Amino acid sequence: MRIGIIGATGFTGFELVKILVKHPEFKIAALTSTSLAGTPYSAVYPQLRGIVDNLIESDDYDKCAEKVDAVFLCLPHTASQEAAAFFLSKGKKVADLSADFRLGSKELYEFVYKVPHKKEELFAEAVYGMPEIFGEQLKTARLAAIPGCYPTSVIMPLFPLLKEGLIDGDFIVADSKSGITGAGKTPSEKTHFCNVQENFQAYGVLSHRHNPEINYILGKAGKHVDVIFTPHLAPINKGIESTIYARSHTDIFQLAECLKTFYKGRRFVRILDFGNAAATANVRDTNFIDIALFKKADKLVITSAIDNLVKGASGAAVQTMNIMCGLDETTGLI
Amino acid sequence: MRIGIIGATGFTGFELVKILVKHPEFKIAALTSTSLAGTPYSAVYPQLRGIVDNLIESDDYDKCAEKVDAVFLCLPHTASQEAAAFFLSKGKKVADLSADFRLGSKELYEFVYKVPHKKEELFAEAVYGMPEIFGEQLKTARLAAIPGCYPTSVIMPLFPLLKEGLIDGDFIVADSKSGITGAGKTPSEKTHFCNVQENFQAYGVLSHRHNPEINYILGKAGKHVDVIFTPHLAPINKGIESTIYARSHTDIFQLAECLKTFYKGRRFVRILDFGNAAATANVRDTNFIDIALFKKADKLVITSAIDNLVKGASGAAVQTMNIMCGLDETTGLI
Amino acid sequence: MRIGIIGATGFTGFELVKILVKHPEFKIAALTSTSLAGTPYSAVYPQLRGIVDNLIESDDYDKCAEKVDAVFLCLPHTASQEAAAFFLSKGKKVADLSADFRLGSKELYEFVYKVPHKKEELFAEAVYGMPEIFGEQLKTARLAAIPGCYPTSVIMPLFPLLKEGLIDGDFIVADSKSGITGAGKTPSEKTHFCNVQENFQAYGVLSHRHNPEINYILGKAGKHVDVIFTPHLAPINKGIESTIYARSHTDIFQLAECLKTFYKGRRFVRILDFGNAAATANVRDTNFIDIALFKKADKLVITSAIDNLVKGASGAAVQTMNIMCGLDETTGLI
Amino acid sequence: MRIGIIGATGFTGFELVKILVKHPEFKIAALTSTSLAGTPYSAVYPQLRGIVDNLIESDDYDKCAEKVDAVFLCLPHTASQEAAAFFLSKGKKVADLSADFRLGSKELYEFVYKVPHKKEELFAEAVYGMPEIFGEQLKTARLAAIPGCYPTSVIMPLFPLLKEGLIDGDFIVADSKSGITGAGKTPSEKTHFCNVQENFQAYGVLSHRHNPEINYILGKAGKHVDVIFTPHLAPINKGIESTIYARSHTDIFQLAECLKTFYKGRRFVRILDFGNAAATANVRDTNFIDIALFKKADKLVITSAIDNLVKGASGAAVQTMNIMCGLDETTGLI
Repeated sequence: MRIGIIGATGFTGFELVKILVKHPEFKIAALTSTSLAGTPYSAVYPQLRGIVDNLIESDDYDKCAEKVDAVFLCLPHTASQEAAAFFLSKGKKVADLSADFRLGSKELYEFVYKVPHKKEELFAEAVYGMPEIFGEQLKTARLAAIPGCYPTSVIMPLFPLLKEGLIDGDFIVADSKSGITGAGKTPSEKTHFCNVQENFQAYGVLSHRHNPEINYILGKAGKHVDVIFTPHLAPINKGIESTIYARSHTDIFQLAECLKTFYKGRRFVRILDFGNAAATANVRDTNFIDIALFKKADKLVITSAIDNLVKGASGAAVQTMNIMCGLDETTGLI
Repeated sequence: MRIGIIGATGFTGFELVKILVKHPEFKIAALTSTSLAGTPYSAVYPQLRGIVDNLIESDDYDKCAEKVDAVFLCLPHTASQEAAAFFLSKGKKVADLSADFRLGSKELYEFVYKVPHKKEELFAEAVYGMPEIFGEQLKTARLAAIPGCYPTSVIMPLFPLLKEGLIDGDFIVADSKSGITGAGKTPSEKTHFCNVQENFQAYGVLSHRHNPEINYILGKAGKHVDVIFTPHLAPINKGIESTIYARSHTDIFQLAECLKTFYKGRRFVRILDFGNAAATANVRDTNFIDIALFKKADKLVITSAIDNLVKGASGAAVQTMNIMCGLDETTGLI
Repeated sequence: MRIGIIGATGFTGFELVKILVKHPEFKIAALTSTSLAGTPYSAVYPQLRGIVDNLIESDDYDKCAEKVDAVFLCLPHTASQEAAAFFLSKGKKVADLSADFRLGSKELYEFVYKVPHKKEELFAEAVYGMPEIFGEQLKTARLAAIPGCYPTSVIMPLFPLLKEGLIDGDFIVADSKSGITGAGKTPSEKTHFCNVQENFQAYGVLSHRHNPEINYILGKAGKHVDVIFTPHLAPINKGIESTIYARSHTDIFQLAECLKTFYKGRRFVRILDFGNAAATANVRDTNFIDIALFKKADKLVITSAIDNLVKGASGAAVQTMNIMCGLDETTGLI
Repeated sequence: MRIGIIGATGFTGFELVKILVKHPEFKIAALTSTSLAGTPYSAVYPQLRGIVDNLIESDDYDKCAEKVDAVFLCLPHTASQEAAAFFLSKGKKVADLSADFRLGSKELYEFVYKVPHKKEELFAEAVYGMPEIFGEQLKTARLAAIPGCYPTSVIMPLFPLLKEGLIDGDFIVADSKSGITGAGKTPSEKTHFCNVQENFQAYGVLSHRHNPEINYILGKAGKHVDVIFTPHLAPINKGIESTIYARSHTDIFQLAECLKTFYKGRRFVRILDFGNAAATANVRDTNFIDIALFKKADKLVITSAIDNLVKGASGAAVQTMNIMCGLDETTGLI
């Protein structure tokens, strides 16, 4: 398969490139960028000197379409809409890493993102790129909406438990902490080293756009939920840890069994032995999600950890594309 | 006032020394340590070369008692019991930074700490060293039990709201993140740089000993509560951020007003303007606690931040001792 | 003394504000900024909520001059020239933290900074604000050029040794490492957390503008030197460590004695006991410079450490202004 | 090839395991440890849960020898001597990551390490495991002495230049900065997070044991040199940056050409384009060494960067073993 990465110079593009370099079936055929066209990719990411020295191409989709069989869209939300429609019209498979097709409908998208959606017709076929939950639908999908990083860490532990009705849905808290790559490559006050180092704080409290995504997808487990979600910035490059609180009247062994059964055979989900908490360092640079359960009376605490750029973005995108291309989902991933 | 610091070489002792060096009324008269007696204090903490070169003394309490009017006990729990009793018997004022006198009764202490308490008789007079809540009792106290670091960050935002009955008590979550100084000066796997850097994780989930302390003290607000408390290790030296979740049917303005009224005139409590989250960097090396409120429907999120070694330990201890000595509580503190 | 800080919102302005808040003789009378006028200072630096809530004023020098007796100029180089001339013309004392008056002559300045100097006439009276070396001249100075951060860490250890002819001048290496506050408050690729965390690298190799400053000032010790200077970015907020290499045929005791004699009575210079290397953590938030000597045969290694924003900028500026105002140099400094 | 890792639970053992898991020709057949025998490897390094769950074996060399064709010794110095002799006697190939066979002779070893060497006879056949310099000899070697991490970063840039006589040998400075993994897995004051975070300092000044190793190996380039070497601790997990100073009367193009010619065809050596400094982040988790040259008049500055655990230890070990086993040196390495 010849692969194009549209918007290849951001952090998710970089993570994709690093994965694809070692992928046995996917070959990088085009790396595009609006602002950095003409530059060798390794000049933007000197880690890849001598490995990916390909020149970055402009965002000329026509030209790109000739060279590729599938594309990963690493564009800001809104920009993915036209791009997805174009590449689909050319018969290419599309994995979109933006939020443009995650929310199921024009209405919800516009309510959350406060901008018009111009490709409403594509919602019907877009499949949420979380292979362990929507793998069946992905097998025949042309368009996948890769989940947000925070939602992955919150949805995967909760979905099976909600589906089986093992936890109360009425007061679920997800307290999430993310590394700074989650804030993107563009320098800002928020990402200035001196505002991050020796600091810890919440942001987007009760207003983060991943909150409706979490609720919408968890709703597919069968019941409306209204998770209270708080993201925080942790002074690390990569990783998300989510500590999730709920009430449950089911014992911890049964809860663990539920998760193990649901995720049976899924290489990238690790349910930890009791007593161990999930740690971002243990999933760094991997496509794993680690999930740990703790319980006392009816108080359930779940901790999960992912690499926000791998399982939380580009790893999930490759895993999803593997399925869309008929490969084993683990191909080329650790 | 001549001051002794018993167990002066740990992190809370160091923080006390740094505060006392600038205190206009308290003079360091004795610094003791079991293992480092005979060493200049500045050899242990080279930051203080030329400032505090005093020789560290052995833990000879008799000798120490002759030189001091008041003592800060920076000892492990259990060790403070005899020491407190001794210095009280000599007519000295005692601020104990350990957990030995925080929990109100021998029964609760022994249940939580799993060791016998040998000075049960002192519980009756020990006052919890949180001046903004127990200041009146501290004025006449001889023995103060300085709060744990986590409890300070959780109790101070919740106490007034619970007292006024403005939040539900039945499902309160406190998700706390602490810098590594909280784990103490002794090297361990937990504090090894390579296990902390680029890592984030919970620990002591549903089993941390500060959880009963939080519940016990909040109970004094009038109602039994059972907070779900999870501590995490953040890769920073100093600071605690707590994100607290509860239900409330009171609007945010009234909640803020409640806190502002309760803490009126209290220099070290800052209720932030709406929209700003509490950040550990903003309270680093100060005795402030920053508190921020967020609300949406009945979902209340509170974030608080303290320096775990200052407001969370040694700053609170000096503030407490100021009151016990008839000084303004802010004396010598920022 | 009523003090104005011109350009108060950068990192050196912030550090000055923090020092002046505790200074017994200097009172902040004006804080100015071009872009942030009208904002409370504590909105820019929330650490100072409740402490410095003064509104920031515009850069209206006429208005400012009426309120102040002395000014600190925290402006980019070139901008300080007119400002310094103006405030001097109004009879104010001026401490300039930029590079505009450090290099002794229009010629050298223009060679190094590649821009014209518009106030050549002021070079004659500008004194280099390094009190331990140029203290006598500062007593009667109206205009002080506060040293660059790197030069302070390199010049102070070497000046006495060169003056006494105890080291060879022909191959001196200064390998310096700085925290990120040294790169300023404006977000950039260089200061993006993800480019700094888990990274270490040199920059400005053989081309940094502090190199000519080092050579020029060391030249005043009596002999032309051509130091090979390399700055590096270390993933810390504050601090500079310089490791300095030279040949010397004098024994280490005599070298140490030379430094101790030269800096006798100078509170902020600490010559460490043999065997200890200078560490940035030991001088953080203080006005100290720690200096350590190591020797083997004719190989001399010196390590020095300062807080780049205190002894390397704002602390030195206050120390200098203290002298210019007839105060003890240590007033208000730790 | 069946591979044994003796002393597999330290940081270099862990790095080896991570590399070997993906190696197409080497299969892990035994992981040993004195203290952790019986534990699953993934309990020590939870990153590897589900990937390397092998039980750790005791240090029973006889038993181990039956299962393996080659061994990597990740033991403290002195412990490798007997182990190397034993496995060689059984016809196994040995790559020793300790210092035991690096220094060429019993005399030099004992002078530097202050302990007796018990296997003098093996010095004659031990080859220094730096494939780009000693690759020819490694082809027929049974025993390789893998270089120290610092020496790799200093020797590789200098060796070709010294060999060709393009730099002066009389005053070479190597100022090196290492991540904390270099200090090993055992907790200590030195590796306590709170002593490292927001700190930077030199250690082992003029007394580090890698200094004689650097001099000894560089001596093989044809001329006695006496490098002045200073190691520093940088607050990062992984990486070494060395900034190297020398005099040279050769122009920079010719110096670069010398390095490019010497390292022609060597995948893991990258000579950077002029103007770029070597950065540890660019080589993290790879087997590359990045080398950058800067020159002004006769002042030559070289910066190099490696991952201290990969090119500085386990990567070099695998590269070396590849050659010893007749494989391409890049097999299984990035």
